[in-house]
Amino acid sequence: MDQRTAADYLIASKQCEILGLEQLLRTGRLVVSVSNLVHALQRERGASNMYVASDGQRFAGEITPLRACAADQEAQFRACLNELDVDAASLPGASRLFSRIAQVIHGLEELRGARETIDALDMDTDTLVTGYSELVQGLLAVVFEAADSAADPDISRVLVAMFHLMQGKEFAGRERAVGAAGFARGGLDAGMIERLRQLIENQERCFEIFAEFADGEPLALWRDGGVEPCPAELERLRRIAFSATRRTTVGADCCDRWFDEASRRIDAMKRVEDRLEATLESLCQEKIAAAEQDLRCHRDEIEVLAEEQSTGEGFALFANGPEGEASGAVAANDVTYAADVARSQLGRSLADLVQSQSRRLQVMSEELNAARAALNERKTIEKAKGLIMRHRKISEEEAYRFLRQVAMSQSRRLADVAADTVTMEDILKQ
Amino acid sequence: MDQRTAADYLIASKQCEILGLEQLLRTGRLVVSVSNLVHALQRERGASNMYVASDGQRFAGEITPLRACAADQEAQFRACLNELDVDAASLPGASRLFSRIAQVIHGLEELRGARETIDALDMDTDTLVTGYSELVQGLLAVVFEAADSAADPDISRVLVAMFHLMQGKEFAGRERAVGAAGFARGGLDAGMIERLRQLIENQERCFEIFAEFADGEPLALWRDGGVEPCPAELERLRRIAFSATRRTTVGADCCDRWFDEASRRIDAMKRVEDRLEATLESLCQEKIAAAEQDLRCHRDEIEVLAEEQSTGEGFALFANGPEGEASGAVAANDVTYAADVARSQLGRSLADLVQSQSRRLQVMSEELNAARAALNERKTIEKAKGLIMRHRKISEEEAYRFLRQVAMSQSRRLADVAADTVTMEDILKQ
Repeated sequence: MDQRTAADYLIASKQCEILGLEQLLRTGRLVVSVSNLVHALQRERGASNMYVASDGQRFAGEITPLRACAADQEAQFRACLNELDVDAASLPGASRLFSRIAQVIHGLEELRGARETIDALDMDTDTLVTGYSELVQGLLAVVFEAADSAADPDISRVLVAMFHLMQGKEFAGRERAVGAAGFARGGLDAGMIERLRQLIENQERCFEIFAEFADGEPLALWRDGGVEPCPAELERLRRIAFSATRRTTVGADCCDRWFDEASRRIDAMKRVEDRLEATLESLCQEKIAAAEQDLRCHRDEIEVLAEEQSTGEGFALFANGPEGEASGAVAANDVTYAADVARSQLGRSLADLVQSQSRRLQVMSEELNAARAALNERKTIEKAKGLIMRHRKISEEEAYRFLRQVAMSQSRRLADVAADTVTMEDILKQ
Repeated sequence: MDQRTAADYLIASKQCEILGLEQLLRTGRLVVSVSNLVHALQRERGASNMYVASDGQRFAGEITPLRACAADQEAQFRACLNELDVDAASLPGASRLFSRIAQVIHGLEELRGARETIDALDMDTDTLVTGYSELVQGLLAVVFEAADSAADPDISRVLVAMFHLMQGKEFAGRERAVGAAGFARGGLDAGMIERLRQLIENQERCFEIFAEFADGEPLALWRDGGVEPCPAELERLRRIAFSATRRTTVGADCCDRWFDEASRRIDAMKRVEDRLEATLESLCQEKIAAAEQDLRCHRDEIEVLAEEQSTGEGFALFANGPEGEASGAVAANDVTYAADVARSQLGRSLADLVQSQSRRLQVMSEELNAARAALNERKTIEKAKGLIMRHRKISEEEAYRFLRQVAMSQSRRLADVAADTVTMEDILKQ
């Protein structure tokens, strides 16, 4: 069997980078379709909620076109899914990604039945909002996996920004639903006020991370496009929501104004998302082009080196070590010496190519770790929640509230308290 | 086009797990071949070093069979490499792995020339030891990448243990070389003593991590097989090495005893490595068998569910949410109600399968992060070293010594000082 040379493996390393980038391009397109489907479902959820809350009096006309729009986006999402190869494990993190997709597909199938129940006004608003929200959360989990498995640090940064923007936007959507339900009945009760407060807080945390990882046009649009700072009118309505209880009934038009203002801000977030998606697509294309260019150059260089290749070499690669020592194999007469130098320079240039590829990949891997730290925090919080749920036998939401209370009472970050909880468990297990 | 169902993606998720495990099995076999090749090179290095140091008087007979043994192991290593598919990016972290392999193949080609130079007694011992050591270090980097890309937390733990055992054993090999060189000339100078101290310290740090991640038979063999605690005779010779300078010449037999004792301990480490490799192989086999069994069960269950599948479903998946609320879609008459319950139970059992797969993968991903923390520490130290090298324009070894001095003077862990260095750089860059 023909043995592969160092040059073969160097080229294989470059080719794998290109294949990985091409997969990221496909994953990026899947993320775009998820973003659009989520937006359509958020709008359908909003209208359906108002429809059920008003006992079929309002939004009856809006629902059909919004469902048609969601169906279009679902078709595009499924088309992107069909681009993924389910027979090969060639996608990194493929098993987690497919598991998330299974959950979403199942949810989308259930949605058909749920719509009939909504038409019959046979579902309460809590079930409705929870149902749509879980489906959206499942879609966001697909984006999370995509971000978590990206191997390029720059693309990973964009995906981390994207995930947190989408997650923040979803909290904004739920805030809109809770506020609308509260205003519709003349004022929010204590439980609703608490939920509103949490949703605003969660939004802000997501947006902080978004702003940390985004840059360029998307970040500029974010700051000038009606998202951040939150528009004054929406802040005023938030204040009314917090202060007006049922005793001091709010104006009848508050509900509509709230819905419109919140929707306007959510639409502005969607425009930032779209811009971020364009960034992602062009970044993938640029990286692929650069990697292909790099591979071409390397092939040429390697061919030249292979032709000049002498048969025996000393420790040229190693002589280039930390001490900067030349090879000890310097013979007594000048001819041998010159041959040795030439040989060692030749060895060194292939060694240089190999080492520069190694070093580049190592730097990438370090930067990747930094980008993923934001995602790992989220995993830690999930794990801590799970531990608390099991230990205290409480619901997921109660566990989250418990974690938050501990963090607030100790003036610490939620993620740090979560990390301590997980460490504590590890210690207790031993 | 036929649309894939949730069940299809659930099965795809399971299949990807199996493919990933099969790849890990192949990677595990590559690691075994690396372990054997490293051991052969370490022995060849030891004998060649003694041969050159004694000006060809000693170990002349040993070198040829040791080289033949290394050549056998190299052939097996290359056979394992040929099992890897270089055309597909189906291996996780493939580009980094191939880049490391390119470096090793290049080094092995250089080794042929270096051996001729050694035969001619035309290489000094420093160049010789550095050359072999860099080659071994390149082989260890292959194991590092294998450990870093494993997606199963249990297998990842074994690979992390394996990498640190191999790295510690390599430090022990270099300790043997430095000590042998020192004893051969009647005593160690200050620089050799300092190097010896560092090599012992580095060994111990690696072995701590090994002991943290290993368990069962390998750990037992480690504790009872002549590795840990370090045998008394070797400790005694270490003490002599530290205290005897050239002025108080050591006994003439010290050099041989040192070489034999150090070799005996290194061979004991190799036996632990072999045991760990057997553990790795059987762990992979067990996991594959379990995953295949799991997939068969799921296929059966899913077929049953698919036959019973009703057309419309409510938010059954979501009704199973944190609040434990039943679906709101409970109709007035009993028949509809019963149908709803049946439907929702059906929905729930497919949903259960999907959710349990998701949850299992999530827990795995969290455990994986824990196993990788040990590897990330290493990456941080590498990065900090690089920063210090650039900033202070010093060699890699000097940068490492600098980091260690800072850590000692502040009584802190090396990894923590490295992490601070990296953070500082990030802050200074902004």
